[in-house]
Amino acid sequence: MKPATLKQIAEHLNISIPTVSKALKDYPDVSKKTKGLVKELAKTLNYKPNTFAVNLRTKESKTIGLIIPVIVHHFFSSVIKGIVAQAEKKGYLVIILQSNESYELEKKQIDLLLSQRVDGILISLANGTGDYKHLEDVISQNKPIVMFDKIAKIVKCTKVIINDRQAAYCATQHLINTGCKRIAHFRGALLPQNSIDRFLGYKKALLDNNLPYDPSLVYICECGDMSFEEGKKNARQLLKDHTHVDGIFINTDLVAIGAMTEFNNQGVKIPEDISIVGFSNWFMSSVISPTLTTINQPGYLMGKTAFKQLYKEIKKTKKKELINHKEIILKTELVKRESTKKEIL
Amino acid sequence: MKPATLKQIAEHLNISIPTVSKALKDYPDVSKKTKGLVKELAKTLNYKPNTFAVNLRTKESKTIGLIIPVIVHHFFSSVIKGIVAQAEKKGYLVIILQSNESYELEKKQIDLLLSQRVDGILISLANGTGDYKHLEDVISQNKPIVMFDKIAKIVKCTKVIINDRQAAYCATQHLINTGCKRIAHFRGALLPQNSIDRFLGYKKALLDNNLPYDPSLVYICECGDMSFEEGKKNARQLLKDHTHVDGIFINTDLVAIGAMTEFNNQGVKIPEDISIVGFSNWFMSSVISPTLTTINQPGYLMGKTAFKQLYKEIKKTKKKELINHKEIILKTELVKRESTKKEIL
Repeated sequence: MKPATLKQIAEHLNISIPTVSKALKDYPDVSKKTKGLVKELAKTLNYKPNTFAVNLRTKESKTIGLIIPVIVHHFFSSVIKGIVAQAEKKGYLVIILQSNESYELEKKQIDLLLSQRVDGILISLANGTGDYKHLEDVISQNKPIVMFDKIAKIVKCTKVIINDRQAAYCATQHLINTGCKRIAHFRGALLPQNSIDRFLGYKKALLDNNLPYDPSLVYICECGDMSFEEGKKNARQLLKDHTHVDGIFINTDLVAIGAMTEFNNQGVKIPEDISIVGFSNWFMSSVISPTLTTINQPGYLMGKTAFKQLYKEIKKTKKKELINHKEIILKTELVKRESTKKEIL
Repeated sequence: MKPATLKQIAEHLNISIPTVSKALKDYPDVSKKTKGLVKELAKTLNYKPNTFAVNLRTKESKTIGLIIPVIVHHFFSSVIKGIVAQAEKKGYLVIILQSNESYELEKKQIDLLLSQRVDGILISLANGTGDYKHLEDVISQNKPIVMFDKIAKIVKCTKVIINDRQAAYCATQHLINTGCKRIAHFRGALLPQNSIDRFLGYKKALLDNNLPYDPSLVYICECGDMSFEEGKKNARQLLKDHTHVDGIFINTDLVAIGAMTEFNNQGVKIPEDISIVGFSNWFMSSVISPTLTTINQPGYLMGKTAFKQLYKEIKKTKKKELINHKEIILKTELVKRESTKKEIL
């Protein structure tokens, strides 16, 4: 049965359309009896309010858009959980779009979200994004946008991040404290700010400890779909290229798990021969053998915080109040497990 | 800068609004010169077509909705990847909503998708869904809907599934073939068809092999957020309740990994003391130690197939052709790994 219209209900009861509309919304100037009749008939006739029409009037859609590079990823999945949980508390629905690390797709998705009249947008940038006009368009339309994790420093909006440089420094320092002298780094792709920052943190820890920085010990991985395989490949290459590496700081856990699998296959012992620190604290890292020392990245909290900020900005925008953009930095921590030795320093 | 309107462009160039609109869409009855002028000005003034208005005219939004119980789940993540990849090929954007296993939320999300005028809906049901009026509403509005994995048999629409009963039978038969005589089952929640079917497959394999079916060997887990912990808890309880269990068929890999962790902690050897078969073939299952024997569930293919079917039905609906609902059953296979012994039968 096709849903009924307000007009059909009005004709059935021989009352005006505005009266039907008011009755359904419990306006005080409609009698209880009429309200009862209208509501019952609306139910019987399968009447559904046109949400889009409602939106145009209240100028709120109670939906927000979320653009995320990849969903099949422990960290982003946790972020999504945090966002959805918080959004639900405030009565918002979340439209999730996956950019697949593609700048072109990300642009299209921003357009889609704007045309769907979302109240605000949460975004973590694709690896391929090096131009920010699409984001500036959102801002110029006075639509709140909050970036998280993979951000662009120069875009003027609120950002929720971690201190990637400090966390990477801490991971590398731990390897040094356990006695490692020749530490490699499997870094992320070239563009994203977080992979640049993690690389810089690694480098600074070496220099601060008077260990030489050797660019040939830095391996790149795109950290996309093939993360695990890339970890294996890099580990294989490292064993070919170098003999005295005793520690590796790896940009993300899944790559680290790939590397560990390769080392296991080749009889390289972890942590006796090579110690490994990952990044993110994927659930998997706590159940593999040996368990992986890593940096805990608070995904759920990041999602929750990002939504809370966006919500505040949506409310302020509605009241035409000025928004002060913030940069919120969440804490990370080193989780010591079996893939590194005891600290001796 | 706020995006310009067609009217502003028309006024600037002193031509009519329809001419501007036609020029932007490359209609042949507008001169090249005018097209050039209009397009250049549209770019300068940051003109964006109102996608929603376009939708009302073409009656296509080129977006589809996807409702999924949980995103943080290896299987569903693979399904999403399959759907998004296929949708992109056909120029469709996918709006993803997470029902969080809640029937109430699922209903709201169906309403949202309908109000957003998606061209079709893909859905895998929440554990909490036992009533299907919201889905019948979609069908009665002549909007194509395809269900996958967690389906309701009585809803009349196309379904893409696996044969859960057969796959579970095969998993249990493998345990029997390796010499297991007293086989427990950690089943999923009570409502979903797939957890019912997996339980029935387990039971039938026992009976076909003249092994007694003992209800006290069946443990339930909701398989929600706490899957890993539930696996540990069930394993702990099973060790308290029974002494001679030598095999377990477990409804999903993450629960199986939880159980294996508990057995490891308690010194129960896998597969020597207890053999384990999981379900789904999560990536993690191939990197833990021992690696987990499991049923490979083709998530990516399921997503791809579901989108392809939906696409066909969207096209048919547009042409007002009749749709023949299909039930597509994808193949599964047993992946033998270290958590079970060699087959002796």
